[in-house]
Amino acid sequence: MSLPISRYPTPTLDGLPEDIRAKILEVQEKAGFVPNVFFGFAHRADEFRAFFAYHDALLLRESGLTKGEKEMIIVATSGANGCLYCVVAHGAILRVYEKAPMLADQLATNYRKADITPRQKAMLDFAMKVCLHSDELGDADYAALREHGFSDEDAWDIAGITALFGLSNRMANMMSLRPNDEFYLLGRLPRAPKG
Amino acid sequence: MSLPISRYPTPTLDGLPEDIRAKILEVQEKAGFVPNVFFGFAHRADEFRAFFAYHDALLLRESGLTKGEKEMIIVATSGANGCLYCVVAHGAILRVYEKAPMLADQLATNYRKADITPRQKAMLDFAMKVCLHSDELGDADYAALREHGFSDEDAWDIAGITALFGLSNRMANMMSLRPNDEFYLLGRLPRAPKG
Amino acid sequence: MSLPISRYPTPTLDGLPEDIRAKILEVQEKAGFVPNVFFGFAHRADEFRAFFAYHDALLLRESGLTKGEKEMIIVATSGANGCLYCVVAHGAILRVYEKAPMLADQLATNYRKADITPRQKAMLDFAMKVCLHSDELGDADYAALREHGFSDEDAWDIAGITALFGLSNRMANMMSLRPNDEFYLLGRLPRAPKG
Amino acid sequence: MSLPISRYPTPTLDGLPEDIRAKILEVQEKAGFVPNVFFGFAHRADEFRAFFAYHDALLLRESGLTKGEKEMIIVATSGANGCLYCVVAHGAILRVYEKAPMLADQLATNYRKADITPRQKAMLDFAMKVCLHSDELGDADYAALREHGFSDEDAWDIAGITALFGLSNRMANMMSLRPNDEFYLLGRLPRAPKG
Amino acid sequence: MSLPISRYPTPTLDGLPEDIRAKILEVQEKAGFVPNVFFGFAHRADEFRAFFAYHDALLLRESGLTKGEKEMIIVATSGANGCLYCVVAHGAILRVYEKAPMLADQLATNYRKADITPRQKAMLDFAMKVCLHSDELGDADYAALREHGFSDEDAWDIAGITALFGLSNRMANMMSLRPNDEFYLLGRLPRAPKG
Amino acid sequence: MSLPISRYPTPTLDGLPEDIRAKILEVQEKAGFVPNVFFGFAHRADEFRAFFAYHDALLLRESGLTKGEKEMIIVATSGANGCLYCVVAHGAILRVYEKAPMLADQLATNYRKADITPRQKAMLDFAMKVCLHSDELGDADYAALREHGFSDEDAWDIAGITALFGLSNRMANMMSLRPNDEFYLLGRLPRAPKG
Repeated sequence: MSLPISRYPTPTLDGLPEDIRAKILEVQEKAGFVPNVFFGFAHRADEFRAFFAYHDALLLRESGLTKGEKEMIIVATSGANGCLYCVVAHGAILRVYEKAPMLADQLATNYRKADITPRQKAMLDFAMKVCLHSDELGDADYAALREHGFSDEDAWDIAGITALFGLSNRMANMMSLRPNDEFYLLGRLPRAPKG
Repeated sequence: MSLPISRYPTPTLDGLPEDIRAKILEVQEKAGFVPNVFFGFAHRADEFRAFFAYHDALLLRESGLTKGEKEMIIVATSGANGCLYCVVAHGAILRVYEKAPMLADQLATNYRKADITPRQKAMLDFAMKVCLHSDELGDADYAALREHGFSDEDAWDIAGITALFGLSNRMANMMSLRPNDEFYLLGRLPRAPKG
Repeated sequence: MSLPISRYPTPTLDGLPEDIRAKILEVQEKAGFVPNVFFGFAHRADEFRAFFAYHDALLLRESGLTKGEKEMIIVATSGANGCLYCVVAHGAILRVYEKAPMLADQLATNYRKADITPRQKAMLDFAMKVCLHSDELGDADYAALREHGFSDEDAWDIAGITALFGLSNRMANMMSLRPNDEFYLLGRLPRAPKG
Repeated sequence: MSLPISRYPTPTLDGLPEDIRAKILEVQEKAGFVPNVFFGFAHRADEFRAFFAYHDALLLRESGLTKGEKEMIIVATSGANGCLYCVVAHGAILRVYEKAPMLADQLATNYRKADITPRQKAMLDFAMKVCLHSDELGDADYAALREHGFSDEDAWDIAGITALFGLSNRMANMMSLRPNDEFYLLGRLPRAPKG
Repeated sequence: MSLPISRYPTPTLDGLPEDIRAKILEVQEKAGFVPNVFFGFAHRADEFRAFFAYHDALLLRESGLTKGEKEMIIVATSGANGCLYCVVAHGAILRVYEKAPMLADQLATNYRKADITPRQKAMLDFAMKVCLHSDELGDADYAALREHGFSDEDAWDIAGITALFGLSNRMANMMSLRPNDEFYLLGRLPRAPKG
Repeated sequence: MSLPISRYPTPTLDGLPEDIRAKILEVQEKAGFVPNVFFGFAHRADEFRAFFAYHDALLLRESGLTKGEKEMIIVATSGANGCLYCVVAHGAILRVYEKAPMLADQLATNYRKADITPRQKAMLDFAMKVCLHSDELGDADYAALREHGFSDEDAWDIAGITALFGLSNRMANMMSLRPNDEFYLLGRLPRAPKG
């Protein structure tokens, strides 16, 4: 596909700082291709490093949320923000993690109609409020989370992931970041590709 | 999948009036399965007949819009209305018609970032205004369509399809109509199944 | 009044298919004039037939809602959609049915201030959510209806009427359908004209 | 009609200060009945006096707007604010002033579809922005007015009337001020009552 | 500061009617400067008189609200309306009244995060609903006020102040009324200037 | 002041990792106090590091925007997001940078009424669209920036700062981060404290 991946020039691997090139080669080794977000953000090395450090801090840490639940938050809030890149890319990751080929389309369109547990529904209610009306957050929202067994650290995780991808959604919308073609099909077939 | 397809009881084929059973068997023959919207609306025979008569009147008639363009309207406006059934079912039909495996996900999330022509973008601008702010429609909106070669009949088609699926979106949201599992993958593989 | 009734050419009775002409003559006989919606939709015969079949299926069937209550839904949701034709035409019908000369103006402006029962208020709360936020419909909305004695079939009726007139509102706004002058006064005088 | 006119106790004429009683008797003499807004606001004498002083300052002064145009602003913006009292009462006054029995219903529902001149449409565009998004007012809005021959004083009139009735709409909604039954029919019959 | 205080010509003291000049000189004597709202509204003498009569009726009367609480309402709702003049001018007055140098900035930005009592929070919840959605006011809103000991007269005060400053916000936004430089610092220093 | 600075426990300097403690001591040395955002984010060391790395990458880099202009973006968008911490803290920084004691209050309330240049107004128009409707960004928005001499890198800066503080606003609203009392007065007095 020769369509540009962004409004901004795409850097070449060779022209990138060593640590960024290494990170990109590592993800390529693991995923089989380089998600465009890596090249999109690599337009500015320091922001690239900060974004992925934040990403890893939130997504790789031990948490009361599973890896799949974290991706649910990303997909549902990115849908609300109209961010094509994140819906498609994280939709793929979610399908692979949860071995649930239909879940991402459900969450991106209307999380109230998705095949999720009431606990996950409460998690997404909180995430959507952080996403759309964070100024209105109050004690009742934390109480609703606690009723489903979420701790204060879990609340922070939900808000943090929503907030970080709110940033990512805005950057992707600004640069018109194009999802890799590979993502659209990933995790949709009965035997999901290795994630 | 044994999950209920709707809040309302699903009718059995045997219990349905002859004309409705015949229509359902015909679509099953053609598609290989019965889209749940048929059983959902069959809860009330007269409304079933009227809905599909309206559907066929708009979607089967000769038009300045291609069959694929009509589905683009359905997918984009159903995304705006948060209707899971229509996004998933008509997303599949769109992929098959246009042989464009990525287009439906793009349109349902953010039509401004989709791989469409400027003419199709203008068509969807008009459709989205009919969908979300029809009270504000005015001469400027028709003028914008004409700049892209759309006739007054085309404008009616765009509005009619948007309005009919606005009805369908509300009914599907009301009854929590579940998309058939088959739709999610349809038209995504290189060699699309016969539509 | 020589103002055009729509952006589209108004068909002449003679040029219309027999069944449509018969239906129009029948309503003229009964009402004393032809509501413009008949000529507006008659621009396309198949859509005319489907629309009125849907209309009759919902409005003429036996229901837990009275004929007047069905018109209340139409007037209140058409007000929310800014549809002049439906507010004026169905406002007239509502006045005649309910022998309530002030009710339509109340419902079109703010149903929370109208002279209706708490049960009718609950009916309109549900209708307005179908009209404006159908993606957010959930169990609590059905429970609220049941508290006022509405059955699941009644819920379908409320949603169906709201959805059908959501279609009608969008079509009328699109074609700038002009209400007949006759409607404005109908049912306002102490001795209402025969409806 | 024995329904209360407001959430607050209705004062009796005898209990009111002399100047307020005189004003009420004067309007009764002229209109044939006492519009409920007089009793509603009379709950507090000083606010009554200030409100009607403001009202008269704006509505009785010489202006580039006709008396009818001023009422158009009131009806359209009161519709946007969902204020039943003002829509019904000022709708009646507008019908009488303009000898236009259909105009108020048009403006309260959707001023874009009303039988008004392009100049009046521009006047209402400005009024609606003052009503709904006054923080976004800018030079372009004044320029649009000037294109239709409105002076800076006219702009002040439009904004002032919109702002005063925004106050009135909020007070009427707060106290659930009930329109007098008389207003609903006023000005609708061929020979309008003397205004 | 030589920037104009309004889109409209600023009247000179000498050219003003005696009563208005007297009122302006009185406020100058007391505050040390003339708040621009006096010159802004003095463009039209009758509206000036009515506005300040209304202002005094609401703000000087005995009430269940303290003087400071009345200013809280003005600051919070003016923030919601994006009115620079009222946020800055009444923010200053609030700081002086409450001897609370940080309170105005909190209320103008997000009253849910302000250093206020639960009772004051309930007062502002009601005010914000009057400000933004007065058509949706209902019994539950009055019940919430009563739980915090507010009487029906207090409810009127809250609504009246919100409504009057909704008028003021719209007029100030329309004329681009500039706050006096003096207001920005007033009441921020440990020893507040005499109010 | 003994009010908690956040819903979450405030870490003690001694308990923090060496690099974070060093950064906090450095800012304390420079500003004379520790802005609460440092303790708020220090609840999680890795997120602290990532956030401030991102912050420094955007705010310390060479840019077509001045340091003051970057703070304008933060203040205006934080106002739109209802984030008390960022409005107050960055309002202070903006006042110090620009030696403009009134500018922050103007931008937080309504940037259209602020004492800024047309170029800065265009910058904030773009920032507000990134903040509130990033899905609608398109070529026209970039063209509007270019008309004022902003480069593509400047557009990235505006979007990046808006997006990062959108994250910060959501985190601060979630944890109810309290601004330090010191910020409220900073930069307001004729001779601003050293920034």
